[in-house]
Amino acid sequence: MESNPEPSPQTPSESWRVRYHRIIFEADTPAGKAFDVVLLVAIVLSVLAVMLETVPSVAERHGTALRVIEWVFTGLFTIEYVLRLLCVRRPVLYARSFFGVVDLVAILPTYLSLFIPGAHELLVVRALRLVRVFRVFKLARFVNEAHALRDALLASRQKIVVFLLVVLTAVTIMGAVMHLVEGPENGFTSIPESMYWAIVTMSTVGFGDIVPVTPLGKMISAVLILFGYSMIIVPTGILSAEISRVRNLRDAQLSTQHCRGCGREGHDADAKFCKFCGHGLDREGEGVEA
Amino acid sequence: MESNPEPSPQTPSESWRVRYHRIIFEADTPAGKAFDVVLLVAIVLSVLAVMLETVPSVAERHGTALRVIEWVFTGLFTIEYVLRLLCVRRPVLYARSFFGVVDLVAILPTYLSLFIPGAHELLVVRALRLVRVFRVFKLARFVNEAHALRDALLASRQKIVVFLLVVLTAVTIMGAVMHLVEGPENGFTSIPESMYWAIVTMSTVGFGDIVPVTPLGKMISAVLILFGYSMIIVPTGILSAEISRVRNLRDAQLSTQHCRGCGREGHDADAKFCKFCGHGLDREGEGVEA
Amino acid sequence: MESNPEPSPQTPSESWRVRYHRIIFEADTPAGKAFDVVLLVAIVLSVLAVMLETVPSVAERHGTALRVIEWVFTGLFTIEYVLRLLCVRRPVLYARSFFGVVDLVAILPTYLSLFIPGAHELLVVRALRLVRVFRVFKLARFVNEAHALRDALLASRQKIVVFLLVVLTAVTIMGAVMHLVEGPENGFTSIPESMYWAIVTMSTVGFGDIVPVTPLGKMISAVLILFGYSMIIVPTGILSAEISRVRNLRDAQLSTQHCRGCGREGHDADAKFCKFCGHGLDREGEGVEA
Amino acid sequence: MESNPEPSPQTPSESWRVRYHRIIFEADTPAGKAFDVVLLVAIVLSVLAVMLETVPSVAERHGTALRVIEWVFTGLFTIEYVLRLLCVRRPVLYARSFFGVVDLVAILPTYLSLFIPGAHELLVVRALRLVRVFRVFKLARFVNEAHALRDALLASRQKIVVFLLVVLTAVTIMGAVMHLVEGPENGFTSIPESMYWAIVTMSTVGFGDIVPVTPLGKMISAVLILFGYSMIIVPTGILSAEISRVRNLRDAQLSTQHCRGCGREGHDADAKFCKFCGHGLDREGEGVEA
Repeated sequence: MESNPEPSPQTPSESWRVRYHRIIFEADTPAGKAFDVVLLVAIVLSVLAVMLETVPSVAERHGTALRVIEWVFTGLFTIEYVLRLLCVRRPVLYARSFFGVVDLVAILPTYLSLFIPGAHELLVVRALRLVRVFRVFKLARFVNEAHALRDALLASRQKIVVFLLVVLTAVTIMGAVMHLVEGPENGFTSIPESMYWAIVTMSTVGFGDIVPVTPLGKMISAVLILFGYSMIIVPTGILSAEISRVRNLRDAQLSTQHCRGCGREGHDADAKFCKFCGHGLDREGEGVEA
Repeated sequence: MESNPEPSPQTPSESWRVRYHRIIFEADTPAGKAFDVVLLVAIVLSVLAVMLETVPSVAERHGTALRVIEWVFTGLFTIEYVLRLLCVRRPVLYARSFFGVVDLVAILPTYLSLFIPGAHELLVVRALRLVRVFRVFKLARFVNEAHALRDALLASRQKIVVFLLVVLTAVTIMGAVMHLVEGPENGFTSIPESMYWAIVTMSTVGFGDIVPVTPLGKMISAVLILFGYSMIIVPTGILSAEISRVRNLRDAQLSTQHCRGCGREGHDADAKFCKFCGHGLDREGEGVEA
Repeated sequence: MESNPEPSPQTPSESWRVRYHRIIFEADTPAGKAFDVVLLVAIVLSVLAVMLETVPSVAERHGTALRVIEWVFTGLFTIEYVLRLLCVRRPVLYARSFFGVVDLVAILPTYLSLFIPGAHELLVVRALRLVRVFRVFKLARFVNEAHALRDALLASRQKIVVFLLVVLTAVTIMGAVMHLVEGPENGFTSIPESMYWAIVTMSTVGFGDIVPVTPLGKMISAVLILFGYSMIIVPTGILSAEISRVRNLRDAQLSTQHCRGCGREGHDADAKFCKFCGHGLDREGEGVEA
Repeated sequence: MESNPEPSPQTPSESWRVRYHRIIFEADTPAGKAFDVVLLVAIVLSVLAVMLETVPSVAERHGTALRVIEWVFTGLFTIEYVLRLLCVRRPVLYARSFFGVVDLVAILPTYLSLFIPGAHELLVVRALRLVRVFRVFKLARFVNEAHALRDALLASRQKIVVFLLVVLTAVTIMGAVMHLVEGPENGFTSIPESMYWAIVTMSTVGFGDIVPVTPLGKMISAVLILFGYSMIIVPTGILSAEISRVRNLRDAQLSTQHCRGCGREGHDADAKFCKFCGHGLDREGEGVEA
């Protein structure tokens, strides 16, 4: 169909690619499964190594070992990344895909840490790679559930945007009011700082690092908290309803019958005649004439 | 229809008004859209300027510039407000409408700050103006969602009032009890202060600025918290159910039409033929035969 | 019907009672309404007086005045209570009813405060009396909503009890574990204290007066918090579903038709024949025979 | 059926076993009920004793008495455990069942405390034994509710696992970012410590023992909190929808019967006649004529 400069699928080179592709990208062969399991363990271990390295007591004793482990894993992941690039037909497309970017970002921090101290902590983004290798467990249903969640969230995204705009506007105004009422001497040093406090309060997190001190400030806080309550309630209700609806639609099980007169579907389960053209709907293969 | 002293729509003055009205109030012409986008940017920038001015480190270096920016924006918004008043037929009606008041309140604080220091922080109410200019993005669906939310809230407003009265009564009694049990020496200095604590606790915010110290106080707090739990649960459930119901009603949209052949109803809104007897359903008063 | 020693309704004494009963207990006459409004204001004012009296700065200046106000209101409420006792037929029944007890408890604290200092703060239970006088606003729908809420809560009460038992058991075990892990030196001074902490944490209140310090304690806390999450989620879901169900049942609008054959009701709206005896159901007054 | 070495049910020994089994394991005889009530009280008392012993002021005065009580109860529970082992046919099966393990774990800590100080606090796991004795109150419906809850949780378990994996990945990445941004000098001493903070914050617990100090850290926290919000909302919605669905399925219970007159189905479970044609519906295979 197109004149790409790559060899045809029958050449030895291509079969080498196909074989590696099968192992690295798929999980339907013993070798592919083994590769994914090893990758899974390697990712978890390397993330744990990065985490432990930041604990002072551990770093003191095993710091060098952890650094070595980190470089070894980064080396392995780099080789894997290069292999992935080599064994796909269109390396650029892969490199720009979501997982391609994650694969690259998962190795870069170690190299960056040579120039920027601490950058290697970003290696924890490797955790995102886990999403891909979960498929080795044949968790098709998990993927389905994740998709169902994503669909419900997408279906509600406009409501969520409206909600966030309302929250941001409320937080801005509330922050300015509290900054005026309480003032810098009570910890509300600026409007952005007050907005941080308003978010912490409305979300019911309530760190307690900044608290209202004046009676008026406390009254306003109480109102803000009750307002923040609805902030929880409203989106919860929205999403609950959305999930219920999506599920009901799926459960509704409209008749899958096509009308023989006009070919349209979407008839109720108890319909005997096509609601679009009046032609009789047949249940057991023979048409009932109107 | 009425003898208003304004010139007829054909006079040059009126056409000037019409043209400006179109630009300032509508967003269906290139000029109107451009106006709304500029306004959007101006509002966001002026709110940011007010916010940054309260940050000490920023105010030290750029304080004068930010003040100038604020006055410039206030000047522009004042001109815009006057133009809005001039190009509507009934300026008083506009000035008393919700957006008219917001437009005025969005410029007043700067002038007030000449007499009352700090008043200009209330300029952040300008954020409310954003609601109007969002229309430039043709976010009709957003508006719909906002209306759906508002409807669900309005439909639940009696339950919400009942809920708030129960909360207030509970908070008052709990505040008095804790004031008696813990006393001023443990931070519960007065009943209003204890009520503030009760709201902070029941809402699960839990700042930690006031905490029970005596064993009895801690026990009462634990009970209050479990009670506060139901406070979250009850209204969440109410609103969820309300949103579900509103949505179901909207989804139902069954036609109220009776079939002229068999007289039955319950047909879908898009049905053209009776699903029970196959007789044509008529929309404009005449039957369509199958 | 019964030989009670009270005078007949026609005697002047009885009519005096009936008249007062009408004013004090009902709200369907101008005098009754006025009485309820005055009572409403008196209750709110007396609760506010008690609250303000505990604020040191207010008590300093207006302490005596507030005390006088409190005694005046208590005197008035005492007179009202005696009148209520006098104008009902069965004073003992009234005195033992919910509102009878509330009416008594609402005046006792002032007298108790002569012997026990501070007892008068319990006067805030007067707020409960507000529930009765709300009826003056003809808030029938509010009462309906309150009943709907109560019904949903009652229908879920077994689930709530199961839920509370699970929470208490979890809190007890978690409290003992944290007491062992963190120990008194980190604030977990005893198992009850740890249980208080566990409730504060699981409910996401998080005062921060007691916090885990050891790494193991922090890990256990994180697990406890995720567990506490489900504690919110589970009952919320239960009640949402319960409210939806109650509402759906009410919305279902079963046909109110009684069968002419067997007299039973509960037929679907689209039923043409009685599902119990097979007799035709008539819509417009005439029976359709099977 | 099998050649077990135990005596036949008719021997005196077996009847002794049967009698004891009835008392100890069942609650359908007066003796069985009395046994369960005594056990219930004993469990509650022994758990209270363990709890009180950790309160310094109580331990000082009643420490010895509480220790004696603990040993007495442990002795009684040990005897009970041995009796349970003796009077079941297959002691090993019982000992390995959930309740068998709980019964053993409920007595071990006292003996362990001879070697490991403080181990006896684990006696609070005795609270788990309460689950068994609740049956004395004939709380069949409670058990049903508990099962309904468990079913809803099980039906949602894949979504919950997906949800926890998302949370863990988010917490890991957020912990590393905050460790980089805030650093050890602001309390974020290591990535695991930052992850603890992220969980405490996203769950809206917000102890306030670790709080962001830098402006950038506060901004990231605000975003994290809004993200944590969805963490509450999403699973709440899932479970609500799940419970609704399970309940609807149970409520539906439509008869799957076809009418022999017109062949239609969709009849209520209590219908005896077809609601479409009036023909009798048969339950045991024969038609009842109208």
